[in-house]
Amino acid sequence: MSQIRVVVAGYGNVGRGVIAALKNNPDMILAGIVSRNPDRVKKTVSGIPVMQIADADQWIAELRPDVAILCGGSKDDLPVQGPALCAKVCTVDSFDNHSRIPEYFKTMDSAANAAGKVAVISTGWDPGIFSLERTLGNAFLPGSRAYGFYGLGESGGLSMGHSDALRTIPGVKDARQYTHAVTGSIEKVRRGENPDFTAGDMHTRECFVVLEDGADPEKVAETIRTMPGYFAPYKTEINFVSQEYLNEKCAGFPHDGLVVAAGVTGSGNPARVEYRCQWGSNPEATANVMVAHARAAVRLAREGRSGAFTILDIPASYFSTASKEELLAKFM
Amino acid sequence: MSQIRVVVAGYGNVGRGVIAALKNNPDMILAGIVSRNPDRVKKTVSGIPVMQIADADQWIAELRPDVAILCGGSKDDLPVQGPALCAKVCTVDSFDNHSRIPEYFKTMDSAANAAGKVAVISTGWDPGIFSLERTLGNAFLPGSRAYGFYGLGESGGLSMGHSDALRTIPGVKDARQYTHAVTGSIEKVRRGENPDFTAGDMHTRECFVVLEDGADPEKVAETIRTMPGYFAPYKTEINFVSQEYLNEKCAGFPHDGLVVAAGVTGSGNPARVEYRCQWGSNPEATANVMVAHARAAVRLAREGRSGAFTILDIPASYFSTASKEELLAKFM
Repeated sequence: MSQIRVVVAGYGNVGRGVIAALKNNPDMILAGIVSRNPDRVKKTVSGIPVMQIADADQWIAELRPDVAILCGGSKDDLPVQGPALCAKVCTVDSFDNHSRIPEYFKTMDSAANAAGKVAVISTGWDPGIFSLERTLGNAFLPGSRAYGFYGLGESGGLSMGHSDALRTIPGVKDARQYTHAVTGSIEKVRRGENPDFTAGDMHTRECFVVLEDGADPEKVAETIRTMPGYFAPYKTEINFVSQEYLNEKCAGFPHDGLVVAAGVTGSGNPARVEYRCQWGSNPEATANVMVAHARAAVRLAREGRSGAFTILDIPASYFSTASKEELLAKFM
Repeated sequence: MSQIRVVVAGYGNVGRGVIAALKNNPDMILAGIVSRNPDRVKKTVSGIPVMQIADADQWIAELRPDVAILCGGSKDDLPVQGPALCAKVCTVDSFDNHSRIPEYFKTMDSAANAAGKVAVISTGWDPGIFSLERTLGNAFLPGSRAYGFYGLGESGGLSMGHSDALRTIPGVKDARQYTHAVTGSIEKVRRGENPDFTAGDMHTRECFVVLEDGADPEKVAETIRTMPGYFAPYKTEINFVSQEYLNEKCAGFPHDGLVVAAGVTGSGNPARVEYRCQWGSNPEATANVMVAHARAAVRLAREGRSGAFTILDIPASYFSTASKEELLAKFM
C-alpha cells in the first residue's frame, strides 16, 4: 500500500502537533499545509507546500491528499470548514463541543455521504478515547456509570477553553486556567457509589490572571466567579500574577484525565475499570490520536464506505499499522 | 428489535457468570443451557431448558439461539466445540491461549464463513479488553510499547491456570496461586523507559498449597520452583497451608490488571496511557465482556457478515445497548 498523503488544514498548536506526529507514522506522508494565512506559515515552514485553505479545488488537485486533518477550532472554524471540505476530500477533525456533536455529525454525514467521502469527526482524547472508554465501561458493566475527571496531577490540567474565556474579560491581559479533579469524588466513584454529582462536585478551577494596567482586581475576580457555565458552578481560585510569572510558570499545555466506572458483576462482586491518560502537551495528544484516525479514514474510504464516523464506529484494528496477522499474534 | 436469544454452553464458573450477567442486559434472554452433563446442571437450575451439548442440531432447533456463548476451557473444550458449533450458530468464546490465537482464529474463520455464521473469539479482559488497549496504546503513541501487569492489589490476582498446574503435582491435594506485579517495573514503564523485561521482572508468584498426607514438602517445593513456563522463570513464594485455611482465606476469584504505555508526543513531551481493571470475580468479569460481545455477534450476523472476529475487528458501538443517537449525545 502506498503512503497515505495527508494535508494538514490549520497551523495552530494541533496542526503543528500533527506535522510532528506524522514523522512517527512511516505509512503516512505530509503532502502539504493549508491555512487561511499561507504567508505566515511559510515564515516557519520550508520544503513543504503551503496553500490557501479557501482554494480547496486547487490544493486537492495539486497535493492529491488521501485525507485532510482539520486542525481548526470547534467554535468558528470546523462548522464551516468541515462540511465544505468533507464534500471534496476525506477528513478527520477534533470537533469538541460535546452538546453540538449530534448536530455536527448529521451535517458532516450528509455532506460526506453525498460526495462518497469519509469524515471522521470529534476525535482526540475527549471527545475521542474517553468517548470510547465511556461506551465500553457502560457496555461491560451494565448499570454502572462512567465518569470523566480531569486534572488529577498536582498542577492540574490546562484548559484552553477556560483560559480563552478569562482573556475575554475586560481588564484581563493574559490568563491560564488549570482544572483540578476533586480527589474525594473520584474515590466515591471508585467505591461503586455511582453518585449524582453537580459539575462543582467533580472539579475545581485555578486561574492565573495578568491584569491590564489600572484594572480593578476585585471587579475582575467577581466577573470570573460569576461567569455562567465556565466558573460560576465551581470553587474557583484566582491568582493575579505578572506576565513574567505566567510565561515562566504556566508555559506548555499539560493535561490529563481519568474515565472510571465501578459497579458489580453477577453475584455482587465489585468491579471497576479505569482509563487514565497524562499528556505533557494536550494539543500534541489530540494530534497523535487524529493521525491514527486519518489512517482509519483512508481504510474506510478504500473499502467504499462513506459518511461521518466517530471513534465508536471504527474497529480498533483500523487505527493500527500492524497487519491482521501481527495483531492476532502480538496484540491479542 | 426482539430480544437476543442466548444459549450458554458450559456450566462452570464462566457459564454461571454469563447467566447472572444476562439479567443485567434486558435486550437478551437466556434461551437455555447446554452441557456435557445436563443431569448435573439440572440439580441446581430450574425453569430453564438444559440440554446435551453434543446434540447441537436438536438444541439449536428447540432453543432457537441467536448466539451461543461458549464457556468451556481453552485447552480441551474450545478447540473441539468452537469449530463444531460456529458451523451451526453464531458463537462467542474466551479462548485465551495467547500463542495459539492465530491458529484458532483461522480454524474458526473457515468454519464460520462456510456456514455464514459469526464467531467472536478470544474475548474477556485478557485477551479481550487488554488486547484492545494494547492496540490503541500502540496506535496512539507510536514507538511506545504497551505492557500488561497483573495482580497489582495487595492480595494479587488468582491465576486459575497456575492453580491448576499446582494441582497436577504429585503430593498436592489442593492449591491456589496468586500473581503479583512487580511495582518497580510498572514505575519503569510509567517513566517511559520502554524496558526489555524477562517474565520474572514483571511478576512474582505466591502459592498456597495443601499437601496430601505423607507428601514431602521439600520435594513438592522443588517441583513447583522448577516447573517450566509456570514457575521456573519467576520468584516464587510457597506456603503450605491446611485445607481449612485455603477454603477460608483463598475463596473467590479476584483478579486485576493494568495495561500501560508511555512515550513521547511530537516535540518530546511525555505521554502515558493506562487501562486498569479490578474484578472481585475473574470469571464473572469474563462473562460480562462475553455478553456484550454476544450482542455484537448478533448485530454483525444481522448485517450479513460472517467469519471470525476479535474485539479488534468490532466497533465499540456494537457492544452497547445505546442507540446511535444516544451514543452521539451522551457518550461522545
